[in-house]
Amino acid sequence: MREVVVHGVGQTPVEEHWERSLRDLATEAGLAAMRDAGVERIDAVFVGNMLSGQIAHQENLGALVADWMGQRGAEGFKVEAACASGAAAFRAAFLAVASGALDAVLAVGVEKMTETSGSETTAALASAADADYESVQGISFVGLNALIMRRYLHEFGWKHTDFGGFSINAHANGARNPNARLREPITERDYSRARMICEPINLLDASPIGDGAAAALLLPADKVARGPRPRIKIAGSAAATDSLAVHDRKDPIFLSAAHLGARRAFAQAGVTPEEIDFFELHDAFSILAAMSLEACGFAERGQGPRLALDGTIRLDGRLPVCTQGGLKARGHPVGATGMYQIVETVQQLRGEAGENQLSKARIGLAQNIGGSGASIFTHILKTD
Amino acid sequence: MREVVVHGVGQTPVEEHWERSLRDLATEAGLAAMRDAGVERIDAVFVGNMLSGQIAHQENLGALVADWMGQRGAEGFKVEAACASGAAAFRAAFLAVASGALDAVLAVGVEKMTETSGSETTAALASAADADYESVQGISFVGLNALIMRRYLHEFGWKHTDFGGFSINAHANGARNPNARLREPITERDYSRARMICEPINLLDASPIGDGAAAALLLPADKVARGPRPRIKIAGSAAATDSLAVHDRKDPIFLSAAHLGARRAFAQAGVTPEEIDFFELHDAFSILAAMSLEACGFAERGQGPRLALDGTIRLDGRLPVCTQGGLKARGHPVGATGMYQIVETVQQLRGEAGENQLSKARIGLAQNIGGSGASIFTHILKTD
Repeated sequence: MREVVVHGVGQTPVEEHWERSLRDLATEAGLAAMRDAGVERIDAVFVGNMLSGQIAHQENLGALVADWMGQRGAEGFKVEAACASGAAAFRAAFLAVASGALDAVLAVGVEKMTETSGSETTAALASAADADYESVQGISFVGLNALIMRRYLHEFGWKHTDFGGFSINAHANGARNPNARLREPITERDYSRARMICEPINLLDASPIGDGAAAALLLPADKVARGPRPRIKIAGSAAATDSLAVHDRKDPIFLSAAHLGARRAFAQAGVTPEEIDFFELHDAFSILAAMSLEACGFAERGQGPRLALDGTIRLDGRLPVCTQGGLKARGHPVGATGMYQIVETVQQLRGEAGENQLSKARIGLAQNIGGSGASIFTHILKTD
Repeated sequence: MREVVVHGVGQTPVEEHWERSLRDLATEAGLAAMRDAGVERIDAVFVGNMLSGQIAHQENLGALVADWMGQRGAEGFKVEAACASGAAAFRAAFLAVASGALDAVLAVGVEKMTETSGSETTAALASAADADYESVQGISFVGLNALIMRRYLHEFGWKHTDFGGFSINAHANGARNPNARLREPITERDYSRARMICEPINLLDASPIGDGAAAALLLPADKVARGPRPRIKIAGSAAATDSLAVHDRKDPIFLSAAHLGARRAFAQAGVTPEEIDFFELHDAFSILAAMSLEACGFAERGQGPRLALDGTIRLDGRLPVCTQGGLKARGHPVGATGMYQIVETVQQLRGEAGENQLSKARIGLAQNIGGSGASIFTHILKTD
């Protein structure tokens, strides 16, 4: 298996991009990644996207994005794994380059969610859940996560306000990220007074949707000369699934697919959780942040919230989390989110993370979750 | 790059499966492929599908199908490239096994199209075309292909009836395939009297939609012992794109992505077009059959119809085509079609093609087209 490096990254801000289409966003991020890598011709583009068919009546995004980027002829397809579509496209790109079949492969995540009504978007997002056993009952995606959080509070005895640290940290970091959708810091008071969406999830537990695209250009390590800028190696790439229906899981408050994937990725990279310098986790809801920390071995079962309470997850803590604002503040354009996580991980490892730059960033973990825990993609990136 | 073999195949009949859901169909085909391979545990399942989000409000098919097959935990994602989603999933599976990262990978194509109204299905299928520059004008997918066929007739001077041989051959073969949707032979008279859908495409130029699933289990060659049954090697795997919008192509009546992909696949497999024993081509419309033959080097430009007229494409001809009925008669459950082509290719190579078995079947070509020529995946399978 060939070693694979990320040699270029690009992103658009996460916003309501009413004047730009899906293809414009993907093209902007993709071309930025190619320029960053100094690559003019790609072999393939794999597009992570969840909702283009339902919202924009546009499928066949592989060919569309290749053409719009001026790369007509390059192979391409769309990869979908609900909110983990971005990292799924990254994994497909990794496998393609690792195989030796392709050299320059672009993974781009893109989503455009703000041009339809809220109820249409909510209905489309529900397609990440089990249509026959969950969505058909009328439960929304927020509703499913609220059930999970309620059970978690009950089992482990936490109060809702114990989760505030996740959102406060995300907003603090997002405020210093020029590409973030929400750039205002929030306080404990804001958090505890935010209006309830679906008990116990309030507005400041939930990440905002948005439009955006993020991309990474992958190359085989042996074709990238070492230069002044650190080379970023994909040291671990793993994925696993759980049932779509939350009620069907062995343990609905444990992310078993995150646990499986992380264990594999750690083994591939030859590192332990203690060696991870920062963690771009999938805080679609604050409860998922706590559960991710537990599943990946950073906290004991039921102890995830402690890492927010004691400051571990802050930029100056032992394990900074969501260093550019995470889903909560950078925003969650669903099919693009996994690629934003990869781009932000690369920025930290290169020392290009601006005001949110960590003093120590040699090994980063990125984890993208699709369908309240069903499809989980875990990557470890390392300076080389 | 590791050598990859197809060690098991499975399929459901193409029908109106009103009593079975998308997940049931995918599971039936997937488990059949696993049984055929004698494999009980898979590392991953990649699901080729185009319309599940728009028609069934169900995405996240990787996790869903893995779970339903009893393979919870195995990684998975959905691969979409319009009507080429099936072969795109097969290519993703090939790259994954070739890389060395995964061993037992299942590619399954599945589509369920008959439970919505015809107009809804037509609208959903139009998402394969360019939403902003084609579908927005109100043109359907049949309409686009009719424009292509009309131009082709004009440029090369053929009559509509010269294309009848493609449909007659497909129906003759489909009549002997127990999994085919249309099992009635047709005559030249039937063809020339069929009612017009969108001039010059009539009902017998067009393939029927349907519900169905087909699957293949891929393994690294070095983990498959040679037995009494021939091993089937993936000797060539290539893909290429063209613009989605037909009007934007350099030459709208030449399948440049088929040409590019076939050239690469031939080079990988080390074979010439003359050495191909049969060709499972993408006859969504008879015009596409003619254009595929030209793009892949079996006919000169503008001479594709000749191979139908002179019997070359029949089971007893020099280059049998659509040996189990093709899209025209076996049926075209869009995201599954590419996997049906792979399954049928394997059946021929193994000598398990029933009444349609060819006397010589050592090297087979399968080509799957998404979006009237935009996304094209080409595979060469060989007995080993």
